[in-house]
Amino acid sequence: MPKYYNAMHKLLVIKIGGNIVDDDDKLQDFLRDFSGISERKILVHGGGKLATRLAAQLGVEQQLVDGRRITDAETLKIVTMVYAGYINKNIVARLQQQGCNAIGLTGADGNAILAHQRTGGQIDYGFAGDIDTVNTAFIDNLLAGNNVVFAPITHNGNGQLLNTNADTIAQEIATAMSSLYEVTLIYGFEKSGVLMDADNEDTVIPEIDPVYYSELKAAKVIFAGMIPKLDNAFSALDRGVKKVVIGKAENLSLLEEGKSGTTIIRR
Amino acid sequence: MPKYYNAMHKLLVIKIGGNIVDDDDKLQDFLRDFSGISERKILVHGGGKLATRLAAQLGVEQQLVDGRRITDAETLKIVTMVYAGYINKNIVARLQQQGCNAIGLTGADGNAILAHQRTGGQIDYGFAGDIDTVNTAFIDNLLAGNNVVFAPITHNGNGQLLNTNADTIAQEIATAMSSLYEVTLIYGFEKSGVLMDADNEDTVIPEIDPVYYSELKAAKVIFAGMIPKLDNAFSALDRGVKKVVIGKAENLSLLEEGKSGTTIIRR
Repeated sequence: MPKYYNAMHKLLVIKIGGNIVDDDDKLQDFLRDFSGISERKILVHGGGKLATRLAAQLGVEQQLVDGRRITDAETLKIVTMVYAGYINKNIVARLQQQGCNAIGLTGADGNAILAHQRTGGQIDYGFAGDIDTVNTAFIDNLLAGNNVVFAPITHNGNGQLLNTNADTIAQEIATAMSSLYEVTLIYGFEKSGVLMDADNEDTVIPEIDPVYYSELKAAKVIFAGMIPKLDNAFSALDRGVKKVVIGKAENLSLLEEGKSGTTIIRR
Repeated sequence: MPKYYNAMHKLLVIKIGGNIVDDDDKLQDFLRDFSGISERKILVHGGGKLATRLAAQLGVEQQLVDGRRITDAETLKIVTMVYAGYINKNIVARLQQQGCNAIGLTGADGNAILAHQRTGGQIDYGFAGDIDTVNTAFIDNLLAGNNVVFAPITHNGNGQLLNTNADTIAQEIATAMSSLYEVTLIYGFEKSGVLMDADNEDTVIPEIDPVYYSELKAAKVIFAGMIPKLDNAFSALDRGVKKVVIGKAENLSLLEEGKSGTTIIRR
């Protein structure tokens, strides 16, 4: 039951990663800024170091391939506890403290995000989920009265929880919700934006369009981990998202206004 | 915004404890029966042994007084991970598997259950919460499309999560929701009901009213842990709940029909 009048509404989908989640003071500051935003908004949080630390304490060996965690059964248990339990519920409680009504979810709740276990590649990622569908009607209904906070856990509809990349969740939610809202997707990460010189935080590129992106890649200004991030951003724009901004989540208000970070646009 | 027409609706509030949560097969059977119930329903789950086991693995010493966990900061972290993360999300994923749409919450989500930290007693229970208010409008809104699954974690509105007894959560939700629904509260526990002879499962007392309760207490048929359970049941009836049933959650369908367990009524 899509409410088409929401197409008039703006929606922010904001992803934060470990650099915020792992730092109590930064998290508190971020959540205060987040609470100050009057528009409808969805927060997607990553996992941070707590899962890795808990795994070490429990003697569960962790394997990472290209920054992605191989999720065996014991690791799935750990990330479900840490992401959906500890991190998600502490964020929700702190948002309530700020007078910002919030509800914390995984993809299993309300069948919000249905995924399937990744198979067929050269690497067996274990219980890692690739997203099939986002339940926009359910999320839209919640947004009428709540800010929604997603942990990076989905399910396959057959009783199996799946560990799912938070960047991907943010992107899939943003694109799906763009059928109902004018969506801005904000990727918070550890740097101030896409940098001309990776070692100099003062060289943020304010705006990148597809032509400029090709040039930057050819010149090897953009490389390694930034390429999938930007590919994802352009893919989101292709699929209906209005604007993607990449920068420091600490500067949330400035990012939202386009005064900080890198804005990815399609002309 | 109470929807008074719901007073025509029935609502089941069902509490399950460790004997179900800790047993994968029993849990699966229970959730299948739960999914088969067509009425609106709320499931409240306890914690089980997993939190105690995880605490032992992490070297966090646990102290129990009269069966209640003393919740220091590290223990709060553990129960938040286990109850709100692992147990809650696995239950939700398994309900989705049964085609039973469900959403898993703590009291922090949507400000569903506001509590305060227990103080002033002879024992310092740490981060243990006593409930102040239940957000009936929020829960009612969710019940229109979802079965709601509560983990025994609340918050104080000031950013603090609190460990809260699952029996108490079930009772407070049942009484609060009785302003909108005709509520039956079902307490699943390890025995078939209130027993005339504590060692004989075939001696279930089918029905207890206040007069009979006094007699049973005087005769010391009911003693120890059963007294607070039954006091709670009568208190729920005083506060608007239609019926309380105590018995084995394994017999959910029979409990619901009054064909198993002990029904607590007020004449």
